[in-house]
Amino acid sequence: MSRFSQPQDPVFKRINASLDFDRRLWPHDVAQSRAHARMLAARAIIGAEDRDALLAGLDAVEAELAAGRFPFSEDDEDIHMAIERRLTEHAGAVGGKLRTARSRNDQVATDLALFTRDAAAHAARAVEALAAALLDAAERHLDWPLPGYTHLQRAQPVYLSHHLLAYVWMLLRDRERFAFAESQTATLPLGAGALAGVNFAIDRTRVAEELRFERVAPNSIDAVSNRDFALDYLSAAATCATHLSRLGAELVLWSSEEFAFVSLPDAWTSGSSIMPQKRNPDAAELLRAKAPRVVAHLGALHGVMHGLPLTYNKDLQEDKEHLFDVVDTLELCLAAATGMVAGARFDRERMSAAASDDLIAATDAADLLVKQGVPFRECHGIVAGLVRVAVDSGRSLAQLTDEELAAASDRLDRTAFRELLAQSSWLESKVSVGGTALARVREQLEAARSALA
Amino acid sequence: MSRFSQPQDPVFKRINASLDFDRRLWPHDVAQSRAHARMLAARAIIGAEDRDALLAGLDAVEAELAAGRFPFSEDDEDIHMAIERRLTEHAGAVGGKLRTARSRNDQVATDLALFTRDAAAHAARAVEALAAALLDAAERHLDWPLPGYTHLQRAQPVYLSHHLLAYVWMLLRDRERFAFAESQTATLPLGAGALAGVNFAIDRTRVAEELRFERVAPNSIDAVSNRDFALDYLSAAATCATHLSRLGAELVLWSSEEFAFVSLPDAWTSGSSIMPQKRNPDAAELLRAKAPRVVAHLGALHGVMHGLPLTYNKDLQEDKEHLFDVVDTLELCLAAATGMVAGARFDRERMSAAASDDLIAATDAADLLVKQGVPFRECHGIVAGLVRVAVDSGRSLAQLTDEELAAASDRLDRTAFRELLAQSSWLESKVSVGGTALARVREQLEAARSALA
Amino acid sequence: MSRFSQPQDPVFKRINASLDFDRRLWPHDVAQSRAHARMLAARAIIGAEDRDALLAGLDAVEAELAAGRFPFSEDDEDIHMAIERRLTEHAGAVGGKLRTARSRNDQVATDLALFTRDAAAHAARAVEALAAALLDAAERHLDWPLPGYTHLQRAQPVYLSHHLLAYVWMLLRDRERFAFAESQTATLPLGAGALAGVNFAIDRTRVAEELRFERVAPNSIDAVSNRDFALDYLSAAATCATHLSRLGAELVLWSSEEFAFVSLPDAWTSGSSIMPQKRNPDAAELLRAKAPRVVAHLGALHGVMHGLPLTYNKDLQEDKEHLFDVVDTLELCLAAATGMVAGARFDRERMSAAASDDLIAATDAADLLVKQGVPFRECHGIVAGLVRVAVDSGRSLAQLTDEELAAASDRLDRTAFRELLAQSSWLESKVSVGGTALARVREQLEAARSALA
Amino acid sequence: MSRFSQPQDPVFKRINASLDFDRRLWPHDVAQSRAHARMLAARAIIGAEDRDALLAGLDAVEAELAAGRFPFSEDDEDIHMAIERRLTEHAGAVGGKLRTARSRNDQVATDLALFTRDAAAHAARAVEALAAALLDAAERHLDWPLPGYTHLQRAQPVYLSHHLLAYVWMLLRDRERFAFAESQTATLPLGAGALAGVNFAIDRTRVAEELRFERVAPNSIDAVSNRDFALDYLSAAATCATHLSRLGAELVLWSSEEFAFVSLPDAWTSGSSIMPQKRNPDAAELLRAKAPRVVAHLGALHGVMHGLPLTYNKDLQEDKEHLFDVVDTLELCLAAATGMVAGARFDRERMSAAASDDLIAATDAADLLVKQGVPFRECHGIVAGLVRVAVDSGRSLAQLTDEELAAASDRLDRTAFRELLAQSSWLESKVSVGGTALARVREQLEAARSALA
Repeated sequence: MSRFSQPQDPVFKRINASLDFDRRLWPHDVAQSRAHARMLAARAIIGAEDRDALLAGLDAVEAELAAGRFPFSEDDEDIHMAIERRLTEHAGAVGGKLRTARSRNDQVATDLALFTRDAAAHAARAVEALAAALLDAAERHLDWPLPGYTHLQRAQPVYLSHHLLAYVWMLLRDRERFAFAESQTATLPLGAGALAGVNFAIDRTRVAEELRFERVAPNSIDAVSNRDFALDYLSAAATCATHLSRLGAELVLWSSEEFAFVSLPDAWTSGSSIMPQKRNPDAAELLRAKAPRVVAHLGALHGVMHGLPLTYNKDLQEDKEHLFDVVDTLELCLAAATGMVAGARFDRERMSAAASDDLIAATDAADLLVKQGVPFRECHGIVAGLVRVAVDSGRSLAQLTDEELAAASDRLDRTAFRELLAQSSWLESKVSVGGTALARVREQLEAARSALA
Repeated sequence: MSRFSQPQDPVFKRINASLDFDRRLWPHDVAQSRAHARMLAARAIIGAEDRDALLAGLDAVEAELAAGRFPFSEDDEDIHMAIERRLTEHAGAVGGKLRTARSRNDQVATDLALFTRDAAAHAARAVEALAAALLDAAERHLDWPLPGYTHLQRAQPVYLSHHLLAYVWMLLRDRERFAFAESQTATLPLGAGALAGVNFAIDRTRVAEELRFERVAPNSIDAVSNRDFALDYLSAAATCATHLSRLGAELVLWSSEEFAFVSLPDAWTSGSSIMPQKRNPDAAELLRAKAPRVVAHLGALHGVMHGLPLTYNKDLQEDKEHLFDVVDTLELCLAAATGMVAGARFDRERMSAAASDDLIAATDAADLLVKQGVPFRECHGIVAGLVRVAVDSGRSLAQLTDEELAAASDRLDRTAFRELLAQSSWLESKVSVGGTALARVREQLEAARSALA
Repeated sequence: MSRFSQPQDPVFKRINASLDFDRRLWPHDVAQSRAHARMLAARAIIGAEDRDALLAGLDAVEAELAAGRFPFSEDDEDIHMAIERRLTEHAGAVGGKLRTARSRNDQVATDLALFTRDAAAHAARAVEALAAALLDAAERHLDWPLPGYTHLQRAQPVYLSHHLLAYVWMLLRDRERFAFAESQTATLPLGAGALAGVNFAIDRTRVAEELRFERVAPNSIDAVSNRDFALDYLSAAATCATHLSRLGAELVLWSSEEFAFVSLPDAWTSGSSIMPQKRNPDAAELLRAKAPRVVAHLGALHGVMHGLPLTYNKDLQEDKEHLFDVVDTLELCLAAATGMVAGARFDRERMSAAASDDLIAATDAADLLVKQGVPFRECHGIVAGLVRVAVDSGRSLAQLTDEELAAASDRLDRTAFRELLAQSSWLESKVSVGGTALARVREQLEAARSALA
Repeated sequence: MSRFSQPQDPVFKRINASLDFDRRLWPHDVAQSRAHARMLAARAIIGAEDRDALLAGLDAVEAELAAGRFPFSEDDEDIHMAIERRLTEHAGAVGGKLRTARSRNDQVATDLALFTRDAAAHAARAVEALAAALLDAAERHLDWPLPGYTHLQRAQPVYLSHHLLAYVWMLLRDRERFAFAESQTATLPLGAGALAGVNFAIDRTRVAEELRFERVAPNSIDAVSNRDFALDYLSAAATCATHLSRLGAELVLWSSEEFAFVSLPDAWTSGSSIMPQKRNPDAAELLRAKAPRVVAHLGALHGVMHGLPLTYNKDLQEDKEHLFDVVDTLELCLAAATGMVAGARFDRERMSAAASDDLIAATDAADLLVKQGVPFRECHGIVAGLVRVAVDSGRSLAQLTDEELAAASDRLDRTAFRELLAQSSWLESKVSVGGTALARVREQLEAARSALA
C-alpha cells in the first residue's frame, strides 16, 4: 500500500528517470552502502547478521554490475533504487534495512562527491601528462627560434621551447584548480538524511573515514542542497578546456600551408571525402570546438542552482549530465592534446626564416638609443620612422642608407645599429627573468620540471 | 593506396568519430542520397543502370537501418561513411559513384537542415498541444478568481482563465519562432561540394524540389559553413524552454502547502524514499531545471562558431550534440507540461479566499477618488495611508471607521468606498481590452482559440 | 502620507535605482505619455484643459531632456519617476493625472518595446551598410583567385568576390532576424495596468496607432511580464555578432605576415607602445572579442526570466542593461566592420600565388577519372596516391613522371591530366549554381545586389 | 615621426579606446610605475635624478587623479597612456623613460592582477560580513521551528537557526574560493615586456616585493597572455552570486502573503506606483536577478579567451568590463543581502504553525517501526498508507482510529505512535551530527562562529 493510487504517467517516468545516466555512479553507491551498513551495525542500529547479509548482497550486486550483467528493470528510476531493489532480491527483506538512517538526498550527494573527487584527481593526472609532453617537446626544441606574435603580427623572436612552456604554466595552474575542486569534495554529506539529520545515533565520522572524506558536513540542510564542489570542478574544467582551445587553435594555424610551422602525423589527421590532397587537423579543431561545450555546462549548472529554494529539489538531478559530459569531454581532449603534442613535427627552417625578418628587431634598435639616454618614447618614434621608410620602399632595415639613418636621428650610432641587425641574436638580448634568452629558458625548464615532479 | 601511411591513433578515432550521435540522421541521409542519385542520372552524369543499382542499394540499406539491424563497423567514422560503405557492400563498386559531385561538407549540412526542419515543425506541433491544453483549462476555470501577483505580492485579483491564457500567448509566440527557424532551413546546401561548387553540371533545383527546399544556397562557401538555422532553432527552443521554466516553477509554487492552489495528480508526482507523506512535483521541477540546459546549448553553438574561419571546419561537428539534446529535451518538456496542465486540479476555495483580501482593492479605492477629479498621485497617497492604518491595527480596509476615513481625505465618499470593498467585484472593474473582466477574458479566449486553430 | 514609515536604506536605493541606465528611454517615455494623455482626454477620463496642461508640461520636460539640462534629483528612482516629478513641477498637480489608468509595469514594457523596435530597425540598416560595403568589395575583386580553405588547409581555389559574398548572405539572414525581432515588438503593452487591466474605459487601439503598434496585447498579465521581444533582438544580435567575429578573425588572420592577403589602412590599425614596427588590427580583434559578450547578455536575460513567477517582478529591471549594452556593442561593431571592409587592401599576388599550388587541383584530377566512368571513391584513392608521391619527393603534381602516373592507374589520361594542371583554370570548373565559376559569381552578385536593394 | 601616415578613423578610436572603463585602474598603475621607476634606478638603467623626477611627476599625477581633476584628453586611448602623457607634461621628456623595459602588455596585466587581488580580498570581507549577519540572525532565532522543505513540499521541521546556518556554510566556501582567486594573482607579470622579456637586466623580484607579489611570472609569454586569475575571481563570484540568488529568492518567497514567514523592513522594500497596499521586496528580487549576469560575464571571458592565439591580443581588452561589472555587482549584492538579513523580521507563529502539521512526522513514525525491526522500506509503505487514509478523509494522522492503525500494521505500537504525534518534538529527534536537534545546532553555531573568526 502506498500513498499513491494511480500509476505514474509514462511521460512522467521518462522525464523523472535518471538511470540512463546515473548508472555510472554505481561503484560509489556500492562503496557508500557498504560503509553505511558497517556503521549501522557498529552502532547497533542493525544486527551483525543483517550487516553480513547486506554486505554479501552488495558483493553479489557489485559483481553483476562490474560484469555488465546486472538485470536492470524498467521500473528502476535511478541507480540507487536499482541497487536497492536488486539487493533485496539477493538478500531478502533485510535489503530494506539499508535505507535506515539514509535518504536518497544525502545518498546521491555523497555519490556525486565521490565521483567528483575521482574526476578531479584524474583530471589532474591527465593535465600532468600533457604538461610532461609539452616539457619534452620544449627540451627537444630548446633553441629553435620562431617569431613571437602579438595581435597575430610578428613581434619579437622567441625560442620554441619558451613558447611551449607557456602552455605548461597554464596547465600547472589548472592542476591547482583541480586540487582546489578536489578539496571541496572532502566533506561527507551522508548522515544529513532527507534534510534535517536522522533519528538515529549514527557515526558519521566512521563513514567519513571509510570513504576517505576529511570531515562531515556540519549542516544537514546545506549537505543535501550543496553542489558547489561540482561547480568547482566545472570551473576548473572550463579554464582547462579554454587553455586547450588555444593550443588546438594554434596547432590548426601552424598546420596551415601559410604558417607551415608544424606538421601533425598521419595518426592525428584525417583526409577529405572529396579532396585527395587534404590532411586535416580534425582533433586540433575539436580541441578548439569543445571549450564552449564545457563552459556551457558550467553555465547550465549555475542556471540550475539559480534561485533554487533550499533544500533538495528535483532540479538537482540536472547536475549529473552536465558534470558527466564535462568529465568525458575533458578526458578525451587532454588525451588528444597529449598525443598531438608528442607527435607534432616542427619545421625548424620555416620558423627560423619567419623569425629572421629584421623588422622584429625594431624594439632592440630602439633600446640601443635608450642606452644612449634618449627617452624611450622618443626612440620609439625614431625607429618607427625608419621602419616606415623601409616598408614603403620594400627594403629591410639593414638596407637603409647612412643618409636615411642620419636623417632619422643624429644620436643613432649607425655601426651599432647595423651590427645589431646583422647578428640575429635578438633572442639572446631578452635577459630578464622569464625572458627568452636561452639561459633563462633553461632555468625555466628546470623550474617547470621540478614543479611538475 | 592513400595519402596516409600510418593508421589513425585510437584517441584520434575516438574524438573524431561522430557515429554515436549522428546515426540518427540516417533517414535524411538516405533521402538526400536518393535525390542525388536521381539527379545525377537525369543529368547523365551517371547512367540509368547505375542509378537503379544505387536506389536498390539504398532501399536495402534503409531497410536494415529501419529494422535496427544495420551492421555498423568500428571503422565507420560517421553515418555518411557507414551508409556509403554498406551501400557498396550491397551494390558493388557503383556505390562509390554516389560521391560524385557531392562532398561530406554539403551532405552533412543538408542532413542537418532536413533534421532541423523536422524538429522545428514537431516543436511547433507540440507547442500547440500544450497551448490547447492550457486553453481547455482556461475554459474549465473561466470565472475562478485568484490573486494576481507582482513581486510575488498579492496585487490585484484576476481570473484563473486569464492567468492560464498568459501562457497561451507566450506559446503562440514560440510557434512563430519555430516557424521562423523552419523558414531558415529552406535553402538547400547540396551542390556546394566541398566549398567551391562542383565540376559537374548538376541540377540543384531538382534536388531541392524532391527534398522540399524552397531554394538553393546561392553561395557554396556560405552553404557549407552556415549553421544559422541551427542557431535559430536553438534560440526558439531557449525562449520556449524559459517559458516552460516559468510554468514549471509556478506549478511547484502553487503545489506548496502554503499556496495549495493546485494539486498535481498521482500520475505526475513522486514519493520520497524516506518521507512517506511526500508528493513531489518532480516533473514540474524538471521543467524549471531544463531551461538552463537549453540556453547553454545555444550559447555553446555560438561559441563553436565564434571566430571560426570560413569554410568548413571540423568544429562544426560540434553542432549536432547540442542540437540533438535540445530537440529531445524540449520534446520531453512540452509533453510533460501538457500532461501536467491537463491533469492539474485547482482548488477554487483556496484561490478565492486568497483573492478576497480587501487590501488588493486598494487600487480600485484610489481610482474612486480619481473619478472625483483628484490626481492619481494624490489618491495613491490617501489610500496608502488608509492601508497603513489598517495593517498596523490588524484590520481590513472595510473595518476602518468613519473618522479614520475622514481623516485621510475629505473628498473620499465613504459610502462608495464601503460599497466598493463589499462587492468583491474588483475583477469586473478591469474592463480595458486584455483586462480581467469576464467579458474581456471571453473575448481573449475566443481570440486565442482562433489564433491556435 | 504613505504606507511606509522608514526611509529607504542607501544600499537599497543603490541596488533599486535604474536611472543611471534607463534614462536613455526618455524619448519613448515622453512619446507614450503624450499618446496616453491624448487618449485619456479623448475618452473624457481627463478634461481637455488637463490634457493641454500635460502636453505643454511634456514639451517643457522634453526640451530639457533633449538639451541635456534636465534637473535630475537624487530621489529619482528611474526615468519614469523623474519625468513625472518634473512634469508636476512644470504643470502643477495635474501632472499626477498622467498616472491615471497607467502603471509603471505597462509603461516600462511599452518604453522597452519602442526602444527595441528602433534598435532592431537600426541594426537592420547597419547590417545593410556592411553588406553593401562587402558587395562593393566583391565587385572590385571579382576575378581575384585565392585558396578556399577547409580545416584551414588549402582546399580549392575560389574568387575573392565569392568569398566576400559569403558574408553578404550571412548578413542578409541577419536582416531577416532583426525584422523578425521588430515584428515581435508590434504588440502594445500599455493599458495592461499593473497586471490585470485598468478600471477605465480606455482606448488602447488609439494609443497603438499613435505609437505605431500593430495591435494591442490581448492579455494584460502577459503584457507586463513579457520580454520575449528583447530576447528576439538579443538572439538576432548574437548571431550577427558571431558572424562579425568570423569576419574579424579572418581579417586578423589575413593581416598576418604569413598570410599577408590583406592590409588594413593606417586608419584602422594601431601601433605598439614598445615595438615600432607593429601595425596591429585592433578593431578586427575586437570584432572577434565582442561576440561572447553579446551571447552572454542573451544568456543572462534568459537567466533572468528563468523560473520567474508571473507577472511583473523587479528582476525584469535587469532586462535593460543587457539590452542596452548589446545595442551599443553591435552598432559599434557593425560600423567598425563596414569601415574596415571599405578600407581593406587585398594583395592580388599573394592570394594568387597561394591559389596556384597544384595540389589544390587534386579534386579536379579525380573528377577527370570520374568522367571516364571510374567510381569517385576509386578516383580519390588514385589521386591521393599521386599526391603522396609528389609531397614525399618535394615535387608538384605536374612534375610527376609518366611512369609514376601509369603506376597509379592505367586509366589515367596523362595528357588530359597535365593539361588540367597547366591551365590554372580550376576555378572555372566549378560551374554548379552557387559555385565559384565566374559566370556563377556574377549571377550571385546580381542576386545579392537585388536582395539588398 | 611615426610609422603611420593617416589618422585613426573616429570609429576605430571609439572601439579601440578603453579609457572610459580602465580609468579605475589608476591607483594600481601609479603604484606599479613608482615601483618600476625605483627598480630602474636601483639597476642603474636610469639615473637617480630621473627617478626622482619621475616620482615627483607621479605624485602630481596621483594628486590630480585622486582629486578628480586629472585633465583627460580625448586622445588618451587608455589610462596608461593618459598617465604617461600627463607625467611627461609634469616632468618633461624624462617621463618617456618610464616606458623603458616595460610594455603596455605586461603593464596592463600587472594592473589587472593588482585590481583583482584587491577585489578578491574585498569580496572575502563582504562575504564575512554577510555570514556574520546570518550568524547573528541564527542566534536570535535559535529554537524557532519552521518546516524544512524538499521539492518545496513540507518535509521535516527544522529550526530557523539551522536553516540560516546553511547559508553561512555556503558563504564560508565562497570565502575559500575568493582566497584561491587571490592566490592566483600572486605572480608578477611585470618584466615580461611585450612578450619575450626585456633587453635590460631588470630586478623583477624587487618590483614584486614592493607591490606585494609572491613570485615573478616564470614565462614572459604566459605572463602577458594569462587572464586565469580573472577567471578564478569570476568563478568565485559566480558561485557566490548564485548562493545570493537562492537567498534572495527565499526572501521573496517567505515575504509572500501565503508564506508570510518574514517581513522585510520599510527600509528594504518599495511601494507600487499604482497599488497603494504593496510592499515589494525589490532588493531581494534583484539578488535573484543578478546571478545570471555574473555567470554571463564569466562565460563571456571564457569566450574571449577561446581559441585565442598566444600572446597578447587586443581581445584581452575585453577582460576589464566583464570583471569590473562583476566586482561592482557583487559588492552591491553582498551589501544588500547583509542589510536585508539584519533587518528581516521573522514571524514565529506563522512558521511554527506551518511546522506543526503532523504529516511531517511521517518519517519519525516510520522510524518507530524500524526500531521494532521492520525493514525501513516496509515501514515506509505502512506509514504512506496511513497518510493516504488521513489525507483522503481530511484528517491529521493523530485523528486516525485504532482500527485504521491496526489495519495498517499489527506491529505498529499505537500508543507510541500517538505519543510521537502529540509531542511535537520531531525536531529534537534529529540527533545526528549536523542535524537539527538543538544541541547539534548549538555545536554548529559554535563551529561556524569559530570558522568565521
